[in-house]
Amino acid sequence: MKRIGRYTVEFESSPRIIAAAASVGKTEGEGPLAEDFDHINPDDGVGCGTWEHAEAALVRQAASLCIKKAAVNAEDIDIVFAGDLLNQCTASTFGFREFGIPAAGLFGACSTFALALYMAALTVDSGGARMAMAEASSHFCGAEKQFRYPLEYGGQRTPTAQRTVTGAGAALIGSRRGAIRIRRGTVGVITDYGITDMANMGAAMAPAAAKTIAAFLEDTGTAPEDYGMILTGDLGMIGSNLLVELLREEYGIDISSRHADCGNMIFYAEKQDTHAGGSGCGCSAAVVCTRIMRVLGERKIKNVLFAGTGALMSPLTAYQGDTIPAIAHAVLLEI
Amino acid sequence: MKRIGRYTVEFESSPRIIAAAASVGKTEGEGPLAEDFDHINPDDGVGCGTWEHAEAALVRQAASLCIKKAAVNAEDIDIVFAGDLLNQCTASTFGFREFGIPAAGLFGACSTFALALYMAALTVDSGGARMAMAEASSHFCGAEKQFRYPLEYGGQRTPTAQRTVTGAGAALIGSRRGAIRIRRGTVGVITDYGITDMANMGAAMAPAAAKTIAAFLEDTGTAPEDYGMILTGDLGMIGSNLLVELLREEYGIDISSRHADCGNMIFYAEKQDTHAGGSGCGCSAAVVCTRIMRVLGERKIKNVLFAGTGALMSPLTAYQGDTIPAIAHAVLLEI
Repeated sequence: MKRIGRYTVEFESSPRIIAAAASVGKTEGEGPLAEDFDHINPDDGVGCGTWEHAEAALVRQAASLCIKKAAVNAEDIDIVFAGDLLNQCTASTFGFREFGIPAAGLFGACSTFALALYMAALTVDSGGARMAMAEASSHFCGAEKQFRYPLEYGGQRTPTAQRTVTGAGAALIGSRRGAIRIRRGTVGVITDYGITDMANMGAAMAPAAAKTIAAFLEDTGTAPEDYGMILTGDLGMIGSNLLVELLREEYGIDISSRHADCGNMIFYAEKQDTHAGGSGCGCSAAVVCTRIMRVLGERKIKNVLFAGTGALMSPLTAYQGDTIPAIAHAVLLEI
Repeated sequence: MKRIGRYTVEFESSPRIIAAAASVGKTEGEGPLAEDFDHINPDDGVGCGTWEHAEAALVRQAASLCIKKAAVNAEDIDIVFAGDLLNQCTASTFGFREFGIPAAGLFGACSTFALALYMAALTVDSGGARMAMAEASSHFCGAEKQFRYPLEYGGQRTPTAQRTVTGAGAALIGSRRGAIRIRRGTVGVITDYGITDMANMGAAMAPAAAKTIAAFLEDTGTAPEDYGMILTGDLGMIGSNLLVELLREEYGIDISSRHADCGNMIFYAEKQDTHAGGSGCGCSAAVVCTRIMRVLGERKIKNVLFAGTGALMSPLTAYQGDTIPAIAHAVLLEI
């Protein structure tokens, strides 16, 4: 492993993605990626009594499906990097409680899956793990209850609000099998442009995404045209436009021909009334583990620069008048 | 870097601790480790308007003191691994917002500092960072408000309850300078013995500590006598007794002559009325970054097996009747 420039590292062995899987909720299963998901739950309760248990069940489903697709045993996985949006990473803890895999909890809000991929690649690349799992999840109902209002309250969502994805994605990283590789990565810097509107996360996260993407391109001496896709986690419609504009105006970089966003991909925004698009740790985890792996596997594009984006606020910091700090972590996926 | 046994890795370059520092609150500053702490705040508000801002200020103090002691520039630190107990890791985010250091958020409840040391050592050892910082924090008033009752309520604490430490500890890890090294590490497995009493965390965490310590000893083919100290994060008095008993009865390992616990070290339990001892991410972070570094630096002992312990519940999971899963991560510190 070696450093390139100020912020980026190269995983010299280019760890491979052995398998990846996602399990999602009903609404996600009615969206444009329905055919890609490994499992669609007919009910967002996932047969559980609470939304938190339901999210933990999604975690178990995604991890089990990934392990099954990889045809490995859980005891051969040396570490899992996992995180979610619930206070104290509840879904990850209860989701992985029965697997017996050493577990490192991550927090990066919706950037968590990118950070998990980075840490899993680092651990495998360095010889610290034979196989490492990266996992992240979120649940619409649990997130609404915790961050905004319980659904029963019937609160109205603003047009700038994104819809938290009900879903979990898990990827297994190793050194031998698999055609898709994790070649480079950038851990982001906390960025705060003074946004205070909790219903406009895209605006809070766009500057962090711009900074990380610009740092990655500068460190690696590459241009947007060198990538088949520059994929952000979940900026949604508003944040995506801001990102393209920010990169053009502040950094002189034009990613408009390459940019895609997981939050824009997962729902039919108008038909499904999902406002500004999808969000939540499970959004990019589910999209990257399914559709992105498929298009890479089919060699429709040769690489994807994936920048997960996270808004690092809590309801309490918002109530106390704090601005919303954000972060973005990136990994380069190659076929 | 290489794996030893099922759960343990050896950081082959033995990354070094360049410097470490801790900033604590008033009560901690009146305890037995007062002379070791780098900074004692005369008021737990740390000049801030909210407890969350106060904890973020502790994070800034510890990180700044550590950077100053190391005589380095923040821009030469390639990554910081940080976490805390507040929902969405508020103190770490707001504490590191102005440093410009790439930031990876961790969650491991009170095991966070051990996990941060492990990840920092892994990153430096693999060449992924020239220098990496490990940091963790907690605040008594913020934790009581979030996990139990706001202080103004005047709730009574049970004799088994531990007192969350107001403090932050930061350590800077690199490859060249510093006499103390991080040689080995173990990431723990989530363990759940069915404890449901949120006022008895020691009992919930002891089985996780026993599992990780036993795994480390087995993987490395060593015995308790090979260590100058076997230090747990913050089991407190009740959890410490349970750990010694569990290891003896379930694993046939006697650590009684070597065991110490950060939660038992930081307060004069009776005089300060701190019940079962200290706890919180900041407890082991502050103790390890000061007293433990000093006794190692003075070569009073040659090594410390430090196992940070965390109870991975949230108030919500407790209210919903869930048991308390726990985890312990270990690192071997050597002079």
